[in-house]
Amino acid sequence: MEGLNYIAAAIAVFGSALAAAYGNGKVISKTIESITRQPELSSELKGTMFIGVGIIEAVPILGIVIALLLIFM
Amino acid sequence: MEGLNYIAAAIAVFGSALAAAYGNGKVISKTIESITRQPELSSELKGTMFIGVGIIEAVPILGIVIALLLIFM
Amino acid sequence: MEGLNYIAAAIAVFGSALAAAYGNGKVISKTIESITRQPELSSELKGTMFIGVGIIEAVPILGIVIALLLIFM
Amino acid sequence: MEGLNYIAAAIAVFGSALAAAYGNGKVISKTIESITRQPELSSELKGTMFIGVGIIEAVPILGIVIALLLIFM
Amino acid sequence: MEGLNYIAAAIAVFGSALAAAYGNGKVISKTIESITRQPELSSELKGTMFIGVGIIEAVPILGIVIALLLIFM
Amino acid sequence: MEGLNYIAAAIAVFGSALAAAYGNGKVISKTIESITRQPELSSELKGTMFIGVGIIEAVPILGIVIALLLIFM
Amino acid sequence: MEGLNYIAAAIAVFGSALAAAYGNGKVISKTIESITRQPELSSELKGTMFIGVGIIEAVPILGIVIALLLIFM
Amino acid sequence: MEGLNYIAAAIAVFGSALAAAYGNGKVISKTIESITRQPELSSELKGTMFIGVGIIEAVPILGIVIALLLIFM
Amino acid sequence: MEGLNYIAAAIAVFGSALAAAYGNGKVISKTIESITRQPELSSELKGTMFIGVGIIEAVPILGIVIALLLIFM
Amino acid sequence: MEGLNYIAAAIAVFGSALAAAYGNGKVISKTIESITRQPELSSELKGTMFIGVGIIEAVPILGIVIALLLIFM
Amino acid sequence: MEGLNYIAAAIAVFGSALAAAYGNGKVISKTIESITRQPELSSELKGTMFIGVGIIEAVPILGIVIALLLIFM
Amino acid sequence: MEGLNYIAAAIAVFGSALAAAYGNGKVISKTIESITRQPELSSELKGTMFIGVGIIEAVPILGIVIALLLIFM
Amino acid sequence: MEGLNYIAAAIAVFGSALAAAYGNGKVISKTIESITRQPELSSELKGTMFIGVGIIEAVPILGIVIALLLIFM
Amino acid sequence: MEGLNYIAAAIAVFGSALAAAYGNGKVISKTIESITRQPELSSELKGTMFIGVGIIEAVPILGIVIALLLIFM
Repeated sequence: MEGLNYIAAAIAVFGSALAAAYGNGKVISKTIESITRQPELSSELKGTMFIGVGIIEAVPILGIVIALLLIFM
Repeated sequence: MEGLNYIAAAIAVFGSALAAAYGNGKVISKTIESITRQPELSSELKGTMFIGVGIIEAVPILGIVIALLLIFM
Repeated sequence: MEGLNYIAAAIAVFGSALAAAYGNGKVISKTIESITRQPELSSELKGTMFIGVGIIEAVPILGIVIALLLIFM
Repeated sequence: MEGLNYIAAAIAVFGSALAAAYGNGKVISKTIESITRQPELSSELKGTMFIGVGIIEAVPILGIVIALLLIFM
Repeated sequence: MEGLNYIAAAIAVFGSALAAAYGNGKVISKTIESITRQPELSSELKGTMFIGVGIIEAVPILGIVIALLLIFM
Repeated sequence: MEGLNYIAAAIAVFGSALAAAYGNGKVISKTIESITRQPELSSELKGTMFIGVGIIEAVPILGIVIALLLIFM
Repeated sequence: MEGLNYIAAAIAVFGSALAAAYGNGKVISKTIESITRQPELSSELKGTMFIGVGIIEAVPILGIVIALLLIFM
Repeated sequence: MEGLNYIAAAIAVFGSALAAAYGNGKVISKTIESITRQPELSSELKGTMFIGVGIIEAVPILGIVIALLLIFM
Repeated sequence: MEGLNYIAAAIAVFGSALAAAYGNGKVISKTIESITRQPELSSELKGTMFIGVGIIEAVPILGIVIALLLIFM
Repeated sequence: MEGLNYIAAAIAVFGSALAAAYGNGKVISKTIESITRQPELSSELKGTMFIGVGIIEAVPILGIVIALLLIFM
Repeated sequence: MEGLNYIAAAIAVFGSALAAAYGNGKVISKTIESITRQPELSSELKGTMFIGVGIIEAVPILGIVIALLLIFM
Repeated sequence: MEGLNYIAAAIAVFGSALAAAYGNGKVISKTIESITRQPELSSELKGTMFIGVGIIEAVPILGIVIALLLIFM
Repeated sequence: MEGLNYIAAAIAVFGSALAAAYGNGKVISKTIESITRQPELSSELKGTMFIGVGIIEAVPILGIVIALLLIFM
Repeated sequence: MEGLNYIAAAIAVFGSALAAAYGNGKVISKTIESITRQPELSSELKGTMFIGVGIIEAVPILGIVIALLLIFM
């Protein structure tokens, strides 16, 4: 049945978008809250945030790549 | 079965919209709360917010692009 | 199977409406709560709110556009 | 398969109604709570509430319009 | 397939009823709680409640109208 | 397919009953709690409760009417 | 397809029973809690409880009636 | 399709059993908690509990009756 | 379609078991908690618990009976 | 369709196992917590626990019996 | 349709595993918490834990037995 | 229909993995928390943890065995 | 129907990944929190964490192995 | 039925992305919170975080590998 790979791509995009937004939203809002409490740790916390965001984005970006693979296959 | 790519586009839009709204809503409302507590950190916090919003929007925008790809394919 | 694009448009509208209402509802109610605590920050907070609302509405509005594309296609 | 556009319209109405009620209910009940705490900010808060309600209603009203489009198409 | 428009009407009624009850229930119970705390703001709060209820009912009433449209079409 | 309108009526009844019970249960239990805190506001609070219950029942009663319409149609 | 009206009756019963139990359970347990706090308001609170229970039961009883209608039709 | 009325009876039993257990469990456990706090109100509270349990059981018992109707029909 | 009555019996058992366990678990654990707070009320509380357990078991036992009816029919 | 009674047995086992584990887990962990607070009530509490566990297990054990009936029928 | 008994066995295993893990996890973690608070009650609490774990495991082990029955039947 | 036993194995694996992770995660994290509060009870608590983990793993390991049985059957 | 074993592998991967992430995330974040409270227990706590992570990973790794078995079978 | 392996790949990606984002988001945000409380433990905590993130990513990365296997098979 043709067309199933389009649905598959959509499911992968769905999961990747939600996952990236959930993880990043949690880390970034926690960072903002922490900067508010201890403004002098701002650069330290933002550094940890960038590492964390990079780690979290890794799998969703792979998911987007797989979605594109599924469409153009 | 033709028409499945339209459904696929809709699923991708669904996930992207929810993800963007969830992540951004969390980060922005936390920023507003933090500015209220420490108004003197306002520019610092807004800067972090813009970085965070940019990171969060990345995957959903890719999802919208994939949805458009699926429709016009 | 014709008619699937109508369902697709409806799913996109469903997700966009929920996403916009969730994100905006969270940001705006947090703004109102914050103005109540610190009325002197009112314009500062409302400015951040307008930026946030604009960022949050971006993807849902794209979702509505895609829904219209799906109907008139 | 005819009749699917009716289902599509119903899904769009479903999402729009829930979204509007969720977002507005949250903003308006927060406004009432805030007026109770600081009655002297009443007009300020109600003004922000009207802006917020207008922003939140935008996408659901578009959803209702799309539902009507789907029925009379 | 005939009969789908009846299902569509029922889905629209389902969503509208839940939405109206959720939003109104939240606003009205918050109003009652607020009157209990500050009885002297009673008319102010009830005025805001009526505006809010009117705004919240708008989309569900449109949903009921659409459900009737779907049945008698 | 005949019989679908019966299912549609049942879905409408399901949603209306849950909606009415959720909204009314919330408002009435909040009223009872408020009377316990401030017994001297009893008539004021019961008046607001009756208005609220009337507003909340409006859409579910319409839903019951639509369900009856769907059965006897 | 015959037999669907039986399923419809069961769905209506399902929703009505859950709705009645949820709403009544909430109101009655809140009443018992309130009597414990202020035993001298016992008759006042029980009066409000009976009004509330009557209002909440209205729609589920209609749902039971509709279920019987669906069976004997 | 024969056999659907058995499924319908099971759905009605399912809903009735859950509803009765949820509502009664809430009211009875709240009563036990209240007797513990104010043992001298024991008969008053148990009286209210019996009234409440009777009201809550009404619709589920009707649901069981309808389930038996559906089986022996 | 034969075999549906077996599924129906299983659904009834499923609901009855969950309902009985939920309601009884709530009441009994609340009783144990209350005895711990006021050991001198032990017989009073256990009496109320037995009444409550009897009331809660009534509908699930009827559900088991109906399940047996469905199997041996 | 043969084989449905196996599925039915599995559903009954599923519900019975979850119900027994949920109810017993709640009662037993509450008992352990209570013994920790008042070690001198240990035998009293364990007695109530055994009664409670017996009452809770009754319906799930019946569910297991029904599942065995469904398999060997 | 052959193969359904495999699915049935899997559903029974699914429910049994979740039930055992949920119930045991709750009881054991509560025991560990209680030992931390009152180390001198350690043997008393562990005794109650073993009884509880035995009672909780009873139905899931029966579920595993039924699953094996379903496979080798 | 061949292939169903693969799906059955996957469902059993799904449930077993979630159950083991849920139960173990709860017990182990509670142990770590308890060691932090009372470091001198460390060996006592770890002993209880190992017993608990063994009991919790029992049913999921049986589930994995059943999954392997289903695949190689 | 060929292809079902691919779906089965995906379900097993889905469950294993979620289970591993849930359990490990809980244990590791609790460890980090505990080290923050009592830094001198750091090696003790990390030792318990490694044991716990090993126990939790066991079943998901088996799930991955079963998924690979299902694909190459 | 060809195309099912694409769906399988998408389900695996979906689960892996969510799992990685959930686990990592929890660990990283807890680390940021802990650094804010005790900045002098920063390197200790980041070390534990990197170990934890590595352990959590292990199964999702295997999931992505399996998804690629499923696509190119």
